[in-house]
This record gives sequence, structure tokens and C-alpha cells, in this order.
Amino acid sequence: MTKGITKRSEDYSQWYIDIVLKAEMADYSPVKGCMVIRPTGYGIWERIQQRLDRMFKETGHVNAYFPMFIPESFLKKEAEHVEGFAPECAMVTHGGGKKLEENLAIRPTSETIIWSTYKNWINSYRDLPILINQWANVCRWEMRTRLFLRTTEFLWQEGHTAHATHEEAEEETMKMVNVYRRFAEEYMAMPVVVGRKTESEKFAGADHTYCIEAMMQDGKALQAGTSHHLGQNFAKAFDVKFQDKDKELKYVHASSWGVSTRLIGALIMTHSDDSGLVIPPRLAPVPVVFVPIWRSDEEMDLVLGWIRELTRDWDPLFYKIDDRDQHKPGFKFAEWELKGVPVRVEVGPRDVANNTVVVVRRDTGEKTPMSMDGLRENLERLLEDIQSSLFERAKRRLEEGTHTVDSYDEYKERVGGGGFYRVFLDVTNPEVEKRLQDETRSTVRCIPFDAPEEEGPCMITGAPCRNRVIAAQSY
Amino acid sequence: MTKGITKRSEDYSQWYIDIVLKAEMADYSPVKGCMVIRPTGYGIWERIQQRLDRMFKETGHVNAYFPMFIPESFLKKEAEHVEGFAPECAMVTHGGGKKLEENLAIRPTSETIIWSTYKNWINSYRDLPILINQWANVCRWEMRTRLFLRTTEFLWQEGHTAHATHEEAEEETMKMVNVYRRFAEEYMAMPVVVGRKTESEKFAGADHTYCIEAMMQDGKALQAGTSHHLGQNFAKAFDVKFQDKDKELKYVHASSWGVSTRLIGALIMTHSDDSGLVIPPRLAPVPVVFVPIWRSDEEMDLVLGWIRELTRDWDPLFYKIDDRDQHKPGFKFAEWELKGVPVRVEVGPRDVANNTVVVVRRDTGEKTPMSMDGLRENLERLLEDIQSSLFERAKRRLEEGTHTVDSYDEYKERVGGGGFYRVFLDVTNPEVEKRLQDETRSTVRCIPFDAPEEEGPCMITGAPCRNRVIAAQSY
Repeated sequence: MTKGITKRSEDYSQWYIDIVLKAEMADYSPVKGCMVIRPTGYGIWERIQQRLDRMFKETGHVNAYFPMFIPESFLKKEAEHVEGFAPECAMVTHGGGKKLEENLAIRPTSETIIWSTYKNWINSYRDLPILINQWANVCRWEMRTRLFLRTTEFLWQEGHTAHATHEEAEEETMKMVNVYRRFAEEYMAMPVVVGRKTESEKFAGADHTYCIEAMMQDGKALQAGTSHHLGQNFAKAFDVKFQDKDKELKYVHASSWGVSTRLIGALIMTHSDDSGLVIPPRLAPVPVVFVPIWRSDEEMDLVLGWIRELTRDWDPLFYKIDDRDQHKPGFKFAEWELKGVPVRVEVGPRDVANNTVVVVRRDTGEKTPMSMDGLRENLERLLEDIQSSLFERAKRRLEEGTHTVDSYDEYKERVGGGGFYRVFLDVTNPEVEKRLQDETRSTVRCIPFDAPEEEGPCMITGAPCRNRVIAAQSY
Repeated sequence: MTKGITKRSEDYSQWYIDIVLKAEMADYSPVKGCMVIRPTGYGIWERIQQRLDRMFKETGHVNAYFPMFIPESFLKKEAEHVEGFAPECAMVTHGGGKKLEENLAIRPTSETIIWSTYKNWINSYRDLPILINQWANVCRWEMRTRLFLRTTEFLWQEGHTAHATHEEAEEETMKMVNVYRRFAEEYMAMPVVVGRKTESEKFAGADHTYCIEAMMQDGKALQAGTSHHLGQNFAKAFDVKFQDKDKELKYVHASSWGVSTRLIGALIMTHSDDSGLVIPPRLAPVPVVFVPIWRSDEEMDLVLGWIRELTRDWDPLFYKIDDRDQHKPGFKFAEWELKGVPVRVEVGPRDVANNTVVVVRRDTGEKTPMSMDGLRENLERLLEDIQSSLFERAKRRLEEGTHTVDSYDEYKERVGGGGFYRVFLDVTNPEVEKRLQDETRSTVRCIPFDAPEEEGPCMITGAPCRNRVIAAQSY
């Protein structure tokens, strides 16, 4: 097969689009800004869902489902929220052939519809906490879209929790950004910087927002997950009070947190190469593919029979046998490489005679002969090795791509070439961030939790600042 | 706890609503006709999804995701389809603050958006079959709604397959209605009649529709799943042709099939009783609940410690320990009964001393002492027994509630009282079905596959008919 993937060094954006389309991850749709998630891409989303859902349940959450329609008036109840989201809503004005009395927004996020419902469920401290997550589609009318990274409709999960105290809401907000960090590192093999968004960059309606930020291969930042401490903002907007142990009526405290199909874009841009997609083994719908090699029907029967016998007791989710007759082995090698399957196992008649196979790693291309004895265990070990190699490689890139810079001139010169910049910036003044964005098309990605104690002058205004922030251009 | 559930014998509709609301399955939403699926209800939906998804994958299907928005013009491309669905669409007319050039319908079903995409994916017989399923929300603007049974927005799965020949599409259509039958019987413990819809009742855009029909406790029918043979209708509407092995260009053949959150309504109305919900064990999010009994802190430590030790190696999805301190055992018994947990295990200090527990079945209320030796296995056996008892009970009801009637007068008199009626009816004449509906508010549910070979006069017109159909009032 001809892959026709543009090289990263030639045109990084085109490389990304080529991977998405040619590996059949997603397709454009006839509706502007929306995408079709094809089975190869959706299979990864299913893995992401399974892993995350388990982590949510292990931390005490349950799933539920709220309506996709939000009355226009609800969006207006929280002042910052309406400003942030109303301009990008899709509006339903007609239903069943009639004009509606009130327009309905398709949810851009569900705080308002959920808090209008929590009002009916919460009376006493005994009803708290509520720890609910929802897997759903959402819609934000975007001007410039890019498959997976920014689409008008996308799939996500959104957690919405209700607590009796500020401390519990804060603990939850922090717990969930750490769940996201663990997921990014352990499953996506994607190192992240964890920190707090500035006032200008926080969620519209939150007291503060925590986030995980990843570095793509071109050095740009990608916000991969956010966790918001909503304070009592939505409780006040929807009048949600509870009677506390001390008999007093108090407003409820809240958090919300989410990740989306954007993670698939992040996964692609973290690991893939000029030969195609590279999927970290723990999220691979098919971790191992067997490609049999034959030149005659007899050899086909021999090789296929041997592979089937070998894998008879294996978990069907662990491997696939590519027994297609209409394609040559070379075509199949290229296809599975393009589609990012972590390990390819080649088996020809001579291998059968020797009780061996040839194992090829997707990440390095390295070929190793292996005995059929203990093959399953050796493949599992290899997959774990690939998983950690991918993480280490990405971690090195993040470290090498992070620079400490003190002069705004130097920053302006370098930031367009990619990379994270540890800089002093006066984030108490929104004008400074606006200037940064206007002049460099970059933003403060976060104030990292692990920033060392430091003091210095804002690189733009010279105002004294505590601790460096991470600034970068981003997706 | 006071349950306050209306008795079925007093007001069956109110009984249903009481169960849904008081067992916290779902809640009304501020948006007319939409519902909030609460964690207890959503947990059952997750089980339904897991089981069905496995069955779909075992039959060769993969998942994908298509946009929720459908350009208005797409809906109009298939003549019957637009007539059936356009009147009940929610329409997005504005996005991002601007009027759209073309209105977008929220999908009422996805044939049109999917076939407009398949056109790009199908060129040759080598690209067939396509066996794709999607889990999604859909929207049909309903005048009269009822939680789970008929809501404006609901969750469902929709399979959309493409084939080279009529025979393959027919095989797929039949295969999937049988997957639904198996799922209904083996997991929901709900016997169904499998058959073909009449011309008047088939899906708008299908050549023919197969369905599974269940009988609720009030004797009314509930359509629980449908599988449509779409012929070449959508391929023609969207110009989807493939080059066949004989080099000729041919239109693609199609099927589509779906079940929805309506199944949760069917589950409730098949098994539940005046004490609350009854969940078949194979779909129960919590199959077994332990209720410890204590009167002092010492006893609490003793009993809870013993239960935790006993269940140490058990799968956490199999059981739950209700260790809440603020509620008495009697309250907990009633709550778990209301919420339909199949088996309750009561443990007090005396049980600990004797190494026994008291096991209570939700379906019969029967109490049995059991030794702690082999408890896990005995509980598993008991759950299987409950599963098959529920099925047998429902099957008996279906059999006893199915009547053979030849006179239209008798039918008119009896049908309002519930039940399935095996009647001769001239389904080649749509006027006959219209009259049936107008005069008796009942419909032909299906022409059962297993109907014995019979001939007789239409009970309304006297026209000669082959084989009896099933007619009933329905949800």
C-alpha cells in the first residue's frame, strides 16, 4: 500500500491530518466542523473510556445522564458562565414543526442543567456528597476546527460533584486532576505538567481551574484535561442549599472536571511518526497482530493452522490474525504500521519448522526472533517495555523542550519555534496576558504545582512576581 | 422508610411512575419531554450496554460515531423517511450567534448522515460488508411522553450495515433481531414474540422490519427492538454504488437495527411488584447486598469485620455492604427491596456466632439460612435460579395472556383489558389496520415467525387471510 503521509519535518499540520485520515481514525462530515469517528479511532476512545471509567468508579463516582437541551434562560443564570459559553452555542428554535416558547441550547457543558436538577436532590448534609459523572456529546460552535483537537461536536465525560464544604470540593478538584495526570502518564504514556490556570484562562464560572498540559512533538502545548473548583457559584445561581449538621442552611460547594475525544489528537501527536500512528499498548484495541506469510495454499494452511493452535487459549482482545487472502504480507506490514498496532508477529513456513516467530516493535521497528515457548508472556513483557519506552521518550522531549527564559525579547524570538517557557509573568494583571497573546500568539498554560519557590520581575512589565509560570503556543 | 408506591391493582400507570421516581431510576427534567437518568437507572443501562456490546462484537460489529446534526436536505432524500421523521425533528437554526445557511436536524435516527458518509467509503465489493454500530442519543419531538418509555431525547444503539447482496442484508437483519431476542430472554428474563411488522407499521424507509414484542404486566404490548431490511433505498437516495466482482456497478444493500433506554421501562414493567423494582440478576449493578444488624458499636465492629473478612476475595461488582450508620436495618431492607437488588444477606451477631447468614430473595421474599461455607457459590446459584424463575413467570404470563379470537365483536370487548390476540386480519389493506386502530386503539404488533400455517377470514372485512397476526394495545 502507498501511505502518502507527509513528513513531520515538511509540514507538521498536514502530517497530523494525513495520519488521522489514512489510518482511518476519523473523517470529515458533511456538517461543518463535525467529524465522523471511524472504528479505528473509536476503538481507542472505547479503551480510554474503559480505563477512565474504572478510575472514576474506584474514586467513588457513579454515572448518570442529563438532557442535552438547556433552556436559554439557564445559561444566563451564572454571569461568567453565560459570557463564556452563550456565544458558542447551537440553538434549537423549532421542535415538532413548531417554534418553541423558549430556545434550547445544545449543551456546551452541563453545569446549568445539572445544578437545576441537584436543587431537587439536595436538602440535607445527608444527601452529600453527590459524585456523578456523565459520558456525553457536547457542542461548541467553533470557527476553526481540526479533527479530534477542536470540533463543533465532540464526545467527553464531565464529572459534576456537590459537597458540604469548601475543603471537600477542593479535595475533589485536586483528586480528579491527579486522576487525569495518572491516566495521561500510565495509559497514554504522555507526561504532563499539572498546575493551575490563571484568572484569564480559568473555566467560565469557576473559582479556579486545575489542568494537565502536554507537549506535542512540534513543541506546542495541548490542554488535555481540566478540573474546576466551582465554589458556590452554581449553587447560588440555582439556589441549591442544604441543612447542615448545625441546622443552618448553606449553599452547596461544587467541582466539575472533564476530558474529551481531544485526547485522541494528543495521543497521535505525542507518539506517532512518519510511518503512521503509534498507539501505546495499554490503549491499543489490538495490541498484537499476526501476519502469516505464505506462497501456496499448502503453506497458508500450515502457517494459519499453526498460529491458530498457538493462540487457542489467548484472550481475543489481545491479538488479531490477519488472514486476508487478497493482500500480500508487505501490504499488511505497511497497513498495521500505519494503524499503529504496537507489535507485529510475522510467521512463515520456516518459522513454523523452527518453532519461532519474528516480532517487530512498532515504536522502534526493531525485529527480534522469539521462540513459541512462553511467547504470550514475552509479548506481554515487550508491550510493557514499549509502553514505558514511549513514556520515557515523551518525557525526555518535554524536559528538553522546556526552557527557562527571563527576557521578553528572547521569548518573542523563541516561542514560535515551540517549547514550554518557564517565565516570570504578572498574572495578577489580565492586561499582561492579553499583551502576551496579541504579541506572541502564546498563553500562560498553567502555574505548575511543582514550580520551585522563586521570585523575579515580570518579563513584560517588570512587576515583581512569585514563581514562574509555563507559557507556550498551544492547540 | 415509607415507600408510598401505588398498588398495580389500583392504578397501573401511577405504579410505574412511582417505581421510576422512588427507586431513583429517573427524574423529570426542566426541558419538556426529556428525562434525567439517575445513577440507579443508568447502572442498569451500563449493564445492558456491556452485554449487548459484547454480543454485537461477537457477531463481527465494530463501534463508530457519526455527527448528531443532520442537514435538513439529507432527511428529504428518502421519500418515506422524510415523511416518517421530519415532523418530529428538533431543528437547530442558529449556531455561534448566527442564523445557519441550512437548518440542522438533531438526529432522530442516523440512516441519512451515515449513508452520506458510506458513499465515500464504498467503492468495491472489497469494501463490503460494513458492520458498524453506534451508541448515541437521539431526539424525536413527542407530544405525550413517559419516563423511559417515550421521551423526546433518549439513548440507544443503532447498527448500520452495508452489504453486496440482498441475501446478505437479509441474513444480517434476521441475525440481529435474533440477537435482540436472545438478549431479551437471557439477560432481561423477558420472553418476546419475534416477527415481522406490517407495511403500515414498518420503519419509514425500510423494505421490511422485524421486531421483538414483549407483554407488560397489564397485558399491553411493548416493542422492545427492531431490525430493518432497508433494501437499496438509502443507497439510491445517497447514490452509494460499488463495483462488484463481475465489474458491474451496483447499489449497496443495507440493514439498520436498534434498541433504546426504553428497555429499562420494559424491564420495570415485566418484573417489578408493589414493593418496588425487581432487577433480573444478570443486569443488576449490585446483585447482592449485605445488611449488617447491630445494636452497639461493639456488635457493629464484630458484624462488619466478619462480613468484610468473608467477602475479602469477592469481585467488588458482585456485592455491596450497606454499612451506613444513620439508618436502621428495617429501613435498609425496605430501600434495597424498593431498588430491586436481587438478593439481600442479613447478618447479625448471632449469625456470626453460628457462621451463618440469612438470605432473602427479592423476587419471592423467601428467607433461607445459609452457611458461610461455600456462600459465594450458593449465592451465584441462587441468582441464576432467580434469573430463570423471573423468565418462567414472565413466560407463563405471556402464554396465559395470549388469546385466539375470531370475532371482531369479541376482540373489541376484550382488547381493552390487555393481552395479545391471535387474529386473522387483512394486513394487505392499510384501511383495515386504520379501522382497527380507530375503533379499538390497538394495532397489529407483528406477524410472528412461528405462527402455524392457518387460513381464515379477516375478522373485520372477511377477506381471506393466511396466518394469524398478533394484535394488542401497546405502549
